[in-house]
Amino acid sequence: MAEQLPDSGALVPVCDSASPDWFIYRVKVHPHHTDYGGIAWHGSYLTWMEAARVECLRSLGVEFAELVTLGCDLPVVTLNLRYHRPARLGESLVIKTRMTGVDGVRIPWDYEIVSLETQELCLSGQVILVAVDREKGRILRQLPPVVQAALTRLAQ
Amino acid sequence: MAEQLPDSGALVPVCDSASPDWFIYRVKVHPHHTDYGGIAWHGSYLTWMEAARVECLRSLGVEFAELVTLGCDLPVVTLNLRYHRPARLGESLVIKTRMTGVDGVRIPWDYEIVSLETQELCLSGQVILVAVDREKGRILRQLPPVVQAALTRLAQ
Amino acid sequence: MAEQLPDSGALVPVCDSASPDWFIYRVKVHPHHTDYGGIAWHGSYLTWMEAARVECLRSLGVEFAELVTLGCDLPVVTLNLRYHRPARLGESLVIKTRMTGVDGVRIPWDYEIVSLETQELCLSGQVILVAVDREKGRILRQLPPVVQAALTRLAQ
Amino acid sequence: MAEQLPDSGALVPVCDSASPDWFIYRVKVHPHHTDYGGIAWHGSYLTWMEAARVECLRSLGVEFAELVTLGCDLPVVTLNLRYHRPARLGESLVIKTRMTGVDGVRIPWDYEIVSLETQELCLSGQVILVAVDREKGRILRQLPPVVQAALTRLAQ
Repeated sequence: MAEQLPDSGALVPVCDSASPDWFIYRVKVHPHHTDYGGIAWHGSYLTWMEAARVECLRSLGVEFAELVTLGCDLPVVTLNLRYHRPARLGESLVIKTRMTGVDGVRIPWDYEIVSLETQELCLSGQVILVAVDREKGRILRQLPPVVQAALTRLAQ
Repeated sequence: MAEQLPDSGALVPVCDSASPDWFIYRVKVHPHHTDYGGIAWHGSYLTWMEAARVECLRSLGVEFAELVTLGCDLPVVTLNLRYHRPARLGESLVIKTRMTGVDGVRIPWDYEIVSLETQELCLSGQVILVAVDREKGRILRQLPPVVQAALTRLAQ
Repeated sequence: MAEQLPDSGALVPVCDSASPDWFIYRVKVHPHHTDYGGIAWHGSYLTWMEAARVECLRSLGVEFAELVTLGCDLPVVTLNLRYHRPARLGESLVIKTRMTGVDGVRIPWDYEIVSLETQELCLSGQVILVAVDREKGRILRQLPPVVQAALTRLAQ
Repeated sequence: MAEQLPDSGALVPVCDSASPDWFIYRVKVHPHHTDYGGIAWHGSYLTWMEAARVECLRSLGVEFAELVTLGCDLPVVTLNLRYHRPARLGESLVIKTRMTGVDGVRIPWDYEIVSLETQELCLSGQVILVAVDREKGRILRQLPPVVQAALTRLAQ
């Protein structure tokens, strides 16, 4: 039988020439993402946005699980989302994200989620993360070196 | 920036020669899948198993969302799972599934979930679905033709 | 053995004299709400906020499931949240919500989530719903009568 | 406005004379529990079963979060469930659970989930937990004293 493509691998990175500054991550709306309306429940988008973030960091050389092992966490501190049109059961979605204007230890991520087929905008918004010392439970004074290095690469 | 591979597309179907009779679907353990232990919460596996099932059906020509539109549902009626070893944050997993011995309108699916890196078995088990008329809320007397045709193709 | 109090019943409505204008709903942080950090995953709050909203509507005489049966949905169109401090495994939380300044068919809900024990603020924010005709998939011109009546009661 | 009853508190423990040996926990089917069918998604039951388990342990004097802090975890190793009839959006459910026949460090829990209104059986099944040393990731040779004491109380 056929092997499906991985959930999030980077085996065949392809440049999205139409969106050079976005990181692209694709998902499908599966039954567990839907609610009684046959559309994606509004909280399901957060799981896709998180997965896109983790994979974007990986593409920049930052393995999130290693960051956690090193004692750093990147919790969400602000979430601003607008839902434009519902995503339906079985629909393929493109999650577009990019880090923008890092300010100290605050890392803002822009998002756009569009239907793969119609290119209609389903969601737009911003998520802000902050770097935290896991043991002390306190905000770090500066980003971990591995994250800082990734940002520098990203800015080049 | 790089485009990641889709969550579940069938753009580049590849035969898994080591498991010719299994359908293969890959996932990664993302933060929202984990619990306080840093490992996948036991319910997260159900989302992966469902996604693998939906994609396996698609590979057989059955689009699940269309089945639902046509008035048929395939709810889970039995779930028997054994958790062998925990899957950790950031780990890549291979979800292996196959339909086995359909009995009337009961469709059993076998599952094995293994670590991509170590090939250790994380979960094994079986899920049984049943075909239901959505409007009447009753079990169908026979499988929908599109599912029956898929099973026939599968058996060849 | 002991019977626990219901998840969301209204058996013993009690006035919260300290917060006369908030609807109060309590939850506990269970394992499935947490992530690898031992704290509530940021998306878990959305499930609590939704439950509080549904129960607040019920306390005003609006049964959400009936609204859906009548062909109306109230999807989230805007979500603005700030996470102030993490909620930990086993912690009891108070979800405070209130409808504010309904504007046509847009229904804004304010939220504050505090620790029951320490009264520390965990989350603050606003969610805006809009009334939609389920069949047509279009925004309604006016709120359903049952919702309008509830709002009138609320304003008295 | 009215204060709703807590999610899981034990403020007013009441004996369920019809089910003296079951621990009773009530939930409501909220929108985020449902799928496209307007019924509870099959994985949502696992969140309710876990909550009932945690609250049952609390009623026996075992605070789950403390157990975790002490270095013990109780992961699920076996899950055997039968879904009898779907639970619908807005429906009130009674989660019935009881520990049965602890065998070494294996702790089996029986479950029945019934509709509060109709008393129809929605789900029946069994979950087996095992006590694990969190640091070593190994199964404990014997149950933690606090769990053992709870079991002794339960058996009296």
